[in-house]
Amino acid sequence: MFILNNSESVPLYKQLYNKIRERILSGQLSADTRLPSVRVLANELSISRNTVEGAYQELCSEGYIYSRSKSGYYVSAHCHDSIPFSPNLASYLQKHPQESPSGYKYDFHPARLDPESFPAVLWRKCFNRIILENPHAYSVYSDPQGEHELRCNIQSYLESSRGVLCQPEQIVICAGLQQGLDIVAHLLKKNHSSVAVEDPGYHLPRSVFRNHAYGIVPIPVRHNGIDIETLKSSQSTIVYVTPSHQLPLGYVMPVAHRLSLIEWAEAGGKYILEDDYDSELRYHGKPFPSLQGLRPGGNIIYLGTFSKVLSPALRISYLVLPKALITDYKNMFKDYFSTISLFEQLTLSKFMSLGHWERHIRRMRTIYKKKHDTLVSCIETHFGSRAEIIGRGAGLHVVVQLQKTKMSEAELIGQADKYRVRLFPFSVTRILDEPRPLQIMLGFGGMSLAEIEQGVSILSRVCPPD
Amino acid sequence: MFILNNSESVPLYKQLYNKIRERILSGQLSADTRLPSVRVLANELSISRNTVEGAYQELCSEGYIYSRSKSGYYVSAHCHDSIPFSPNLASYLQKHPQESPSGYKYDFHPARLDPESFPAVLWRKCFNRIILENPHAYSVYSDPQGEHELRCNIQSYLESSRGVLCQPEQIVICAGLQQGLDIVAHLLKKNHSSVAVEDPGYHLPRSVFRNHAYGIVPIPVRHNGIDIETLKSSQSTIVYVTPSHQLPLGYVMPVAHRLSLIEWAEAGGKYILEDDYDSELRYHGKPFPSLQGLRPGGNIIYLGTFSKVLSPALRISYLVLPKALITDYKNMFKDYFSTISLFEQLTLSKFMSLGHWERHIRRMRTIYKKKHDTLVSCIETHFGSRAEIIGRGAGLHVVVQLQKTKMSEAELIGQADKYRVRLFPFSVTRILDEPRPLQIMLGFGGMSLAEIEQGVSILSRVCPPD
Repeated sequence: MFILNNSESVPLYKQLYNKIRERILSGQLSADTRLPSVRVLANELSISRNTVEGAYQELCSEGYIYSRSKSGYYVSAHCHDSIPFSPNLASYLQKHPQESPSGYKYDFHPARLDPESFPAVLWRKCFNRIILENPHAYSVYSDPQGEHELRCNIQSYLESSRGVLCQPEQIVICAGLQQGLDIVAHLLKKNHSSVAVEDPGYHLPRSVFRNHAYGIVPIPVRHNGIDIETLKSSQSTIVYVTPSHQLPLGYVMPVAHRLSLIEWAEAGGKYILEDDYDSELRYHGKPFPSLQGLRPGGNIIYLGTFSKVLSPALRISYLVLPKALITDYKNMFKDYFSTISLFEQLTLSKFMSLGHWERHIRRMRTIYKKKHDTLVSCIETHFGSRAEIIGRGAGLHVVVQLQKTKMSEAELIGQADKYRVRLFPFSVTRILDEPRPLQIMLGFGGMSLAEIEQGVSILSRVCPPD
Repeated sequence: MFILNNSESVPLYKQLYNKIRERILSGQLSADTRLPSVRVLANELSISRNTVEGAYQELCSEGYIYSRSKSGYYVSAHCHDSIPFSPNLASYLQKHPQESPSGYKYDFHPARLDPESFPAVLWRKCFNRIILENPHAYSVYSDPQGEHELRCNIQSYLESSRGVLCQPEQIVICAGLQQGLDIVAHLLKKNHSSVAVEDPGYHLPRSVFRNHAYGIVPIPVRHNGIDIETLKSSQSTIVYVTPSHQLPLGYVMPVAHRLSLIEWAEAGGKYILEDDYDSELRYHGKPFPSLQGLRPGGNIIYLGTFSKVLSPALRISYLVLPKALITDYKNMFKDYFSTISLFEQLTLSKFMSLGHWERHIRRMRTIYKKKHDTLVSCIETHFGSRAEIIGRGAGLHVVVQLQKTKMSEAELIGQADKYRVRLFPFSVTRILDEPRPLQIMLGFGGMSLAEIEQGVSILSRVCPPD
């Protein structure tokens, strides 16, 4: 009848409880069915009567079954809301444990942030103020495009720090880059069928546009960013670029190159998707103006995020649409609601208007600059001429190109793994795979200075000079 | 040079400030350009010198311009991060005031919730505990499908209260119905091209599927829900239904009808999208089992939300996918991130596992039952035989069909408007518009008992017997 497992960590009576409960809920045991007596079931399963008693007791106390004196236990009629969550949740958590956090000691994953850096106290203060100031806001749907107040703060920030010129009416608050791109994919589908992307480049945009049946056209990346000649000769009318910090190579697009990209777009209603994701994290020299700032009226869709400097767990990013697209946007999404919690929007807005956001950026820039510089010098010390560092000076990772090693990426990752060093496969950023020197992407955001130091020295031993 | 507007609510010096500031930021006034003297500009614009002084002073204090003694004012070099947000935000808020909350005294909008009912104190407690317990979680991306712990709580809740049988692995946490449907639209696009919807019915799903280039097939609604014969004769292989409380008519689909709908789906890989949005709010009699619960293995995609009973501002809903679709889902969205704040997911999970969610549902059911019953009796008192109440007994609205009135919907809404009564146009729920008796949707969620009483009596006078 029931198969119980002695070796399982779950006590026997609980296993029995779960099994009976499941059958009751699934209807296999219908209302008023008589359950086998404690003695019979105990013999059948060759377990102690106490075990069976234990299970029946719990089922009884929770209303799954009821007892009739001198007659035994019966299944209750399944009544609405009568069943507490915890036991079943517990059993589920036992059956399906949450993917445990990586057992890595040195995690070079490029998407990791400094775990200590989130301004939790300030954030909690803002949040609690917001709740108190807006007692009724929980009962309403928020502005589909995002809270106007937050859009105003973002507009001002973009204008002052990125030279982006727009009105709050052009801004859409999104739940991360993917949702921003999803909106863009919807908006441009009518007249566009393929998107040019950087190769190597970020893989997420490719997935989003592929899911919308766009063709993906890989364009090689040079030292000044995406190769414009190849772009021109391609048929695509949309290009996705990361000019502030090319992902993954880290190149910063020079102004001249930005202008010719804008020229390309202006010839015949093409669109530039400018993902400015790492713009806040520039460690040497002044940041370059955004493409949008260079041609505010142009066909440039600007994408920014709070995931890199503030928190990826918040899932708040934004989209700046050209005025020309606003009407289409409003028509297409007029029935939609905002996808971001009103209270986190208001909390962020408060956080910004109190100046915390600006201060936080400055703080993070200092913290990450130190990590960046440490990583660079460690690589130079431990690898010397064996490694070339590509795209230093910004963002949360650098790329290391290993000269004359015979190791494959897989081998390197496998070796590193043995020493609890986690490497992110660079190959996922490539579309065309031609033979290339081995490159690794080293994210430093989530690591301490000591971990960077040790991690790099382990790596240098993992891939010795041939 | 500058056009200022005396009638505008923005003071003149502020208007001037904004105009100059914009030109500086847009680069029209480059660094070290000398600004016209106070006297000259005052004459030019025929405004007082104090006004010009005021604008220059503010620009100076904020670092946009600087003054040289005896020489005048000059434009500063535009330096990164140097410009505070507030002035510009303020001016924007003046120029584009946030859509002010409806001036209505009696707001019958069906999407409104009880403004007092959100358990803010409990929620804040859970939230603050979560932040303290997970100091580092702000630096990580959360599980793309949603936090496992939250999915376990939802699974248990659905099983115990809705008879939905699934595993947490089948649940996807979404930012509201529209995102859930968006995922479904993506998943089914490959093999399906049109969606059958209830007419009258909820307009949002139509927009979502239309945006994915699906055909929309309207199917009439009978007293037992969507008309299955018409559905069968239609070519669509997907149907979107609201069986717990048909939106807008409020009918509850009887079990027999549910079974034949399931039969329809099982013949040839068709899909039922079961939007169970109002299932928690049933005031008389026991709730019906969900379609998914009737055929857990079937082609039923179950959609539920926290927007109706807890808060629409949180933007948290969920999707239960049939096991058969999980692989497609994982392939299609493997590169995506969750769109919902990790902390609100964990807060909700904590809220549920402490039993607050169950208690909250019971509390809301009591509150809304009172409002529902009051509304119904008021309608009966004030309209008598002139009105028929359709779909009472569940949800947050009822539909009133006005017998023999010559008024059009527009006239009625316009008339009500004059008395600060807000009505939601029923017509937006219709696709085919055949001549029908005038119907109005009266949402009671956001209104007090007194407001319901007064609102209905005003309405009865607004549309008098002919």
